[in-house]
Amino acid sequence: MADEGLAAETLCQVALVVKDIEKAAKAWAEALGVPVPEARLTGPAEETQIRCRGKPTEARARLAFFNLGPIILELIEPVGEPSVWRDGLGKCDAAFHHVAFYVRDAERTIDRLQAQGMEVVQTGGFRGGRYVYVDARQRLGAMLELLPTGR
Amino acid sequence: MADEGLAAETLCQVALVVKDIEKAAKAWAEALGVPVPEARLTGPAEETQIRCRGKPTEARARLAFFNLGPIILELIEPVGEPSVWRDGLGKCDAAFHHVAFYVRDAERTIDRLQAQGMEVVQTGGFRGGRYVYVDARQRLGAMLELLPTGR
Repeated sequence: MADEGLAAETLCQVALVVKDIEKAAKAWAEALGVPVPEARLTGPAEETQIRCRGKPTEARARLAFFNLGPIILELIEPVGEPSVWRDGLGKCDAAFHHVAFYVRDAERTIDRLQAQGMEVVQTGGFRGGRYVYVDARQRLGAMLELLPTGR
Repeated sequence: MADEGLAAETLCQVALVVKDIEKAAKAWAEALGVPVPEARLTGPAEETQIRCRGKPTEARARLAFFNLGPIILELIEPVGEPSVWRDGLGKCDAAFHHVAFYVRDAERTIDRLQAQGMEVVQTGGFRGGRYVYVDARQRLGAMLELLPTGR
Protein backbone atom coordinates (compact mmCIF):
# COMPACT_ATOMS: atom_id res chain seq x y z
CA MET A 1 0.00 0.00 0.00
CA ALA A 2 2.81 2.40 0.89
CA ASP A 3 4.10 1.92 -2.64
CA GLU A 4 1.09 3.91 -3.82
CA GLY A 5 1.86 7.13 -1.93
CA LEU A 6 4.44 9.59 -0.71
CA ALA A 7 5.48 7.32 2.17
CA ALA A 8 7.22 5.21 -0.49
CA GLU A 9 9.19 8.27 -1.59
CA THR A 10 11.91 10.12 0.34
CA LEU A 11 11.20 13.15 2.49
CA CYS A 12 14.28 15.26 1.88
CA GLN A 13 13.62 18.88 2.76
CA VAL A 14 11.82 21.35 4.99
CA ALA A 15 11.65 24.91 3.68
CA LEU A 16 10.86 28.32 5.11
CA VAL A 17 10.27 31.53 3.18
CA VAL A 18 12.01 34.54 4.69
CA LYS A 19 12.01 38.28 4.10
CA ASP A 20 15.76 38.77 4.61
CA ILE A 21 17.83 35.71 3.80
CA GLU A 22 21.12 37.10 5.16
CA LYS A 23 19.50 37.76 8.53
CA ALA A 24 17.67 34.41 8.61
CA ALA A 25 20.70 32.42 7.46
CA LYS A 26 22.85 34.09 10.13
CA ALA A 27 20.30 33.34 12.88
CA TRP A 28 19.93 29.69 11.80
CA ALA A 29 23.71 29.28 11.47
CA GLU A 30 24.12 30.56 15.00
CA ALA A 31 21.43 28.21 16.38
CA LEU A 32 22.87 25.28 14.45
CA GLY A 33 26.48 26.14 15.21
CA VAL A 34 27.60 26.01 11.58
CA PRO A 35 29.05 28.53 9.10
CA VAL A 36 26.59 30.91 7.42
CA PRO A 37 25.80 29.47 3.97
CA GLU A 38 25.98 31.76 0.96
CA ALA A 39 22.60 32.68 -0.51
CA ARG A 40 22.39 32.02 -4.23
CA LEU A 41 19.96 33.46 -6.75
CA THR A 42 17.87 31.10 -8.88
CA GLY A 43 18.46 31.35 -12.62
CA PRO A 44 16.54 33.64 -14.97
CA ALA A 45 13.15 32.52 -16.31
CA GLU A 46 14.52 31.51 -19.72
CA GLU A 47 16.76 29.05 -17.92
CA THR A 48 14.37 27.83 -15.21
CA GLN A 49 11.18 27.84 -17.35
CA ILE A 50 9.32 28.83 -14.20
CA ARG A 51 5.52 28.85 -14.35
CA CYS A 52 3.24 30.00 -11.55
CA ARG A 53 -0.47 29.07 -11.62
CA GLY A 54 -0.14 28.02 -15.24
CA LYS A 55 1.57 31.17 -16.52
CA PRO A 56 5.21 32.02 -17.21
CA THR A 57 6.67 34.44 -14.65
CA GLU A 58 9.97 36.22 -14.10
CA ALA A 59 9.89 35.38 -10.36
CA ARG A 60 13.17 34.35 -8.82
CA ALA A 61 14.36 33.55 -5.31
CA ARG A 62 17.51 33.58 -3.23
CA LEU A 63 18.18 30.24 -1.58
CA ALA A 64 20.33 29.04 1.30
CA PHE A 65 20.67 25.46 2.48
CA PHE A 66 21.62 23.76 5.73
CA ASN A 67 22.42 20.07 5.71
CA LEU A 68 20.79 18.62 8.82
CA GLY A 69 21.73 15.01 8.34
CA PRO A 70 18.61 13.21 7.14
CA ILE A 71 17.12 16.33 5.59
CA ILE A 72 17.98 19.72 4.19
CA LEU A 73 16.63 22.93 5.70
CA GLU A 74 16.05 25.43 2.89
CA LEU A 75 15.58 29.18 3.33
CA ILE A 76 13.91 31.01 0.44
CA GLU A 77 13.77 34.77 -0.06
CA PRO A 78 11.31 35.70 -2.82
CA VAL A 79 12.74 38.04 -5.47
CA GLY A 80 10.75 39.99 -8.04
CA GLU A 81 7.42 38.95 -9.43
CA PRO A 82 4.57 37.02 -7.76
CA SER A 83 5.33 33.41 -6.90
CA VAL A 84 4.17 30.83 -4.39
CA TRP A 85 7.20 31.89 -2.36
CA ARG A 86 5.94 35.48 -2.13
CA ASP A 87 2.39 34.24 -1.46
CA GLY A 88 3.69 32.07 1.36
CA LEU A 89 5.64 34.87 3.02
CA GLY A 90 2.78 37.37 3.03
CA LYS A 91 3.54 40.08 5.55
CA CYS A 92 5.64 37.84 7.79
CA ASP A 93 9.38 37.96 8.37
CA ALA A 94 9.49 34.18 8.01
CA ALA A 95 6.97 31.40 7.44
CA PHE A 96 6.97 27.68 6.89
CA HIS A 97 6.74 26.96 3.17
CA HIS A 98 6.92 23.28 2.22
CA VAL A 99 8.13 19.77 2.79
CA ALA A 100 9.82 18.19 -0.21
CA PHE A 101 9.94 14.61 -1.41
CA TYR A 102 12.17 12.99 -3.98
CA VAL A 103 9.68 11.13 -6.19
CA ARG A 104 10.43 8.36 -8.64
CA ASP A 105 7.41 8.80 -10.92
CA ALA A 106 6.38 12.45 -10.78
CA GLU A 107 3.47 12.22 -13.21
CA ARG A 108 1.88 9.36 -11.33
CA THR A 109 2.38 11.12 -8.01
CA ILE A 110 0.88 14.34 -9.38
CA ASP A 111 -2.12 12.45 -10.80
CA ARG A 112 -2.70 10.80 -7.45
CA LEU A 113 -2.47 14.02 -5.46
CA GLN A 114 -4.70 15.87 -7.93
CA ALA A 115 -7.29 13.11 -7.60
CA GLN A 116 -7.22 13.81 -3.85
CA GLY A 117 -8.02 17.49 -4.47
CA MET A 118 -4.57 19.07 -4.53
CA GLU A 119 -3.33 21.39 -7.25
CA VAL A 120 -0.02 22.01 -9.05
CA VAL A 121 0.70 25.71 -8.46
CA GLN A 122 4.28 26.28 -9.59
CA THR A 123 6.90 24.41 -11.58
CA GLY A 124 10.41 25.18 -12.66
CA GLY A 125 13.88 23.85 -13.26
CA PHE A 126 17.31 24.21 -11.74
CA ARG A 127 20.69 22.89 -12.70
CA GLY A 128 20.29 19.14 -12.48
CA GLY A 129 16.58 18.90 -11.90
CA ARG A 130 13.12 20.34 -11.74
CA TYR A 131 10.49 20.91 -9.07
CA VAL A 132 6.73 20.81 -8.81
CA TYR A 133 4.86 22.58 -6.01
CA VAL A 134 1.56 20.97 -5.10
CA ASP A 135 -0.71 23.12 -2.97
CA ALA A 136 -1.88 20.81 -0.22
CA ARG A 137 -2.40 23.56 2.34
CA GLN A 138 -6.16 23.18 2.42
CA ARG A 139 -6.04 19.41 2.70
CA LEU A 140 -2.78 18.67 4.53
CA GLY A 141 -1.82 21.99 6.09
CA ALA A 142 1.38 22.15 4.06
CA MET A 143 2.64 22.89 0.59
CA LEU A 144 4.36 19.85 -0.98
CA GLU A 145 7.36 20.02 -3.30
CA LEU A 146 8.03 17.08 -5.58
CA LEU A 147 11.57 16.60 -6.85
CA PRO A 148 11.51 14.00 -9.62
CA THR A 149 14.51 11.71 -9.52
CA GLY A 150 13.84 10.36 -13.00
CA ARG A 151 13.95 6.78 -11.79
CA MET B 1 32.04 24.26 15.74
CA ALA B 2 29.00 22.15 14.84
CA ASP B 3 29.38 20.51 18.24
CA GLU B 4 28.21 23.79 19.76
CA GLY B 5 24.78 23.92 18.13
CA LEU B 6 21.71 22.06 16.95
CA ALA B 7 23.48 20.78 13.84
CA ALA B 8 25.32 18.41 16.17
CA GLU B 9 21.96 17.08 17.38
CA THR B 10 19.41 15.01 15.44
CA LEU B 11 16.49 16.57 13.60
CA CYS B 12 13.78 13.99 14.20
CA GLN B 13 10.35 15.51 13.68
CA VAL B 14 8.22 18.01 11.80
CA ALA B 15 4.88 18.86 13.40
CA LEU B 16 1.65 20.51 12.34
CA VAL B 17 -1.20 21.65 14.57
CA VAL B 18 -4.62 20.75 13.21
CA LYS B 19 -8.21 21.54 14.10
CA ASP B 20 -9.57 18.05 13.39
CA ILE B 21 -7.03 15.28 13.80
CA GLU B 22 -9.23 12.53 12.35
CA LYS B 23 -9.72 14.53 9.15
CA ALA B 24 -6.05 15.56 8.92
CA ALA B 25 -4.74 12.07 9.68
CA LYS B 26 -7.04 10.60 7.02
CA ALA B 27 -5.91 13.12 4.40
CA TRP B 28 -2.22 12.59 5.18
CA ALA B 29 -2.66 8.80 5.23
CA GLU B 30 -4.24 8.99 1.79
CA ALA B 31 -1.44 11.19 0.41
CA LEU B 32 1.22 8.99 1.98
CA GLY B 33 -0.50 5.72 1.05
CA VAL B 34 -0.37 4.31 4.56
CA PRO B 35 -2.97 3.25 7.16
CA VAL B 36 -4.62 6.01 9.20
CA PRO B 37 -2.81 6.17 12.56
CA GLU B 38 -4.87 6.25 15.73
CA ALA B 39 -4.90 9.61 17.51
CA ARG B 40 -3.93 9.36 21.16
CA LEU B 41 -4.60 11.81 23.94
CA THR B 42 -1.69 13.13 26.00
CA GLY B 43 -1.81 12.30 29.70
CA PRO B 44 -3.43 14.46 32.38
CA ALA B 45 -1.48 17.38 33.85
CA GLU B 46 -0.58 15.53 37.06
CA GLU B 47 1.18 12.97 34.88
CA THR B 48 2.74 15.26 32.26
CA GLN B 49 3.58 18.18 34.61
CA ILE B 50 2.83 20.47 31.67
CA ARG B 51 3.70 24.16 32.10
CA CYS B 52 2.91 26.86 29.56
CA ARG B 53 4.67 30.25 29.80
CA GLY B 54 5.86 29.39 33.28
CA LYS B 55 2.49 28.31 34.70
CA PRO B 56 0.89 24.91 35.23
CA THR B 57 -1.98 24.26 32.79
CA GLU B 58 -4.50 21.51 32.15
CA ALA B 59 -3.94 21.71 28.39
CA ARG B 60 -3.78 18.42 26.54
CA ALA B 61 -3.52 17.39 22.90
CA ARG B 62 -4.41 14.53 20.62
CA LEU B 63 -1.43 13.28 18.64
CA ALA B 64 -0.95 11.16 15.53
CA PHE B 65 2.37 10.12 14.04
CA PHE B 66 3.57 9.09 10.59
CA ASN B 67 6.98 7.50 10.25
CA LEU B 68 8.53 9.03 7.14
CA GLY B 69 11.88 7.27 7.24
CA PRO B 70 14.42 9.79 8.49
CA ILE B 71 11.84 11.80 10.40
CA ILE B 72 8.44 11.60 12.03
CA LEU B 73 5.53 13.76 10.89
CA GLU B 74 3.42 14.65 13.94
CA LEU B 75 -0.14 15.97 13.87
CA ILE B 76 -1.34 17.75 17.01
CA GLU B 77 -4.92 18.68 17.83
CA PRO B 78 -5.07 21.05 20.82
CA VAL B 79 -7.49 19.95 23.54
CA GLY B 80 -8.76 22.09 26.39
CA GLU B 81 -6.90 24.98 27.93
CA PRO B 82 -4.48 27.45 26.29
CA SER B 83 -1.20 26.00 25.09
CA VAL B 84 1.39 26.75 22.45
CA TRP B 85 -0.47 24.21 20.31
CA ARG B 86 -3.66 26.27 20.46
CA ASP B 87 -1.70 29.52 19.94
CA GLY B 88 -0.09 27.99 16.86
CA LEU B 89 -3.36 26.87 15.33
CA GLY B 90 -5.14 30.20 15.73
CA LYS B 91 -8.11 30.30 13.40
CA CYS B 92 -6.56 27.93 10.84
CA ASP B 93 -7.58 24.38 10.02
CA ALA B 94 -3.91 23.40 10.05
CA ALA B 95 -0.61 25.16 10.55
CA PHE B 96 3.05 24.29 10.78
CA HIS B 97 4.06 24.04 14.44
CA HIS B 98 7.66 22.97 15.05
CA VAL B 99 10.76 21.05 14.10
CA ALA B 100 12.10 18.80 16.83
CA PHE B 101 15.63 17.78 17.71
CA TYR B 102 16.88 15.03 19.98
CA VAL B 103 19.39 16.85 22.18
CA ARG B 104 22.09 15.29 24.33
CA ASP B 105 22.50 18.13 26.82
CA ALA B 106 19.18 19.96 27.09
CA GLU B 107 20.25 22.52 29.68
CA ARG B 108 23.26 23.58 27.66
CA THR B 109 21.21 23.79 24.47
CA ILE B 110 18.51 25.84 26.22
CA ASP B 111 21.13 28.20 27.68
CA ARG B 112 22.66 28.69 24.25
CA LEU B 113 19.32 29.35 22.52
CA GLN B 114 18.21 31.71 25.29
CA ALA B 115 21.46 33.64 24.90
CA GLN B 116 20.50 34.05 21.23
CA GLY B 117 17.17 35.59 22.23
CA MET B 118 14.83 32.59 22.18
CA GLU B 119 12.49 31.67 24.99
CA VAL B 120 11.24 28.45 26.62
CA VAL B 121 7.45 28.63 26.30
CA GLN B 122 6.15 25.19 27.23
CA THR B 123 7.50 22.06 28.88
CA GLY B 124 6.03 18.71 29.75
CA GLY B 125 6.57 15.01 29.99
CA PHE B 126 5.33 11.90 28.28
CA ARG B 127 5.90 8.24 28.89
CA GLY B 128 9.63 7.80 28.41
CA GLY B 129 10.66 11.40 28.07
CA ARG B 130 10.04 15.10 28.25
CA TYR B 131 9.90 18.00 25.82
CA VAL B 132 10.85 21.66 25.81
CA TYR B 133 9.36 24.10 23.31
CA VAL B 134 11.62 27.02 22.49
CA ASP B 135 9.92 29.89 20.72
CA ALA B 136 12.25 30.75 17.86
CA ARG B 137 9.52 32.09 15.59
CA GLN B 138 10.75 35.66 15.73
CA ARG B 139 14.35 34.72 15.11
CA LEU B 140 14.22 31.55 13.02
CA GLY B 141 10.66 31.49 11.67
CA ALA B 142 9.90 28.25 13.49
CA MET B 143 9.14 26.90 16.94
CA LEU B 144 11.78 24.40 18.11
CA GLU B 145 11.10 21.34 20.22
CA LEU B 146 13.96 19.84 22.20
CA LEU B 147 13.70 16.18 23.18
CA PRO B 148 16.43 15.41 25.73
CA THR B 149 17.95 11.99 25.23
CA GLY B 150 19.66 12.05 28.61
CA ARG B 151 23.04 11.26 27.09
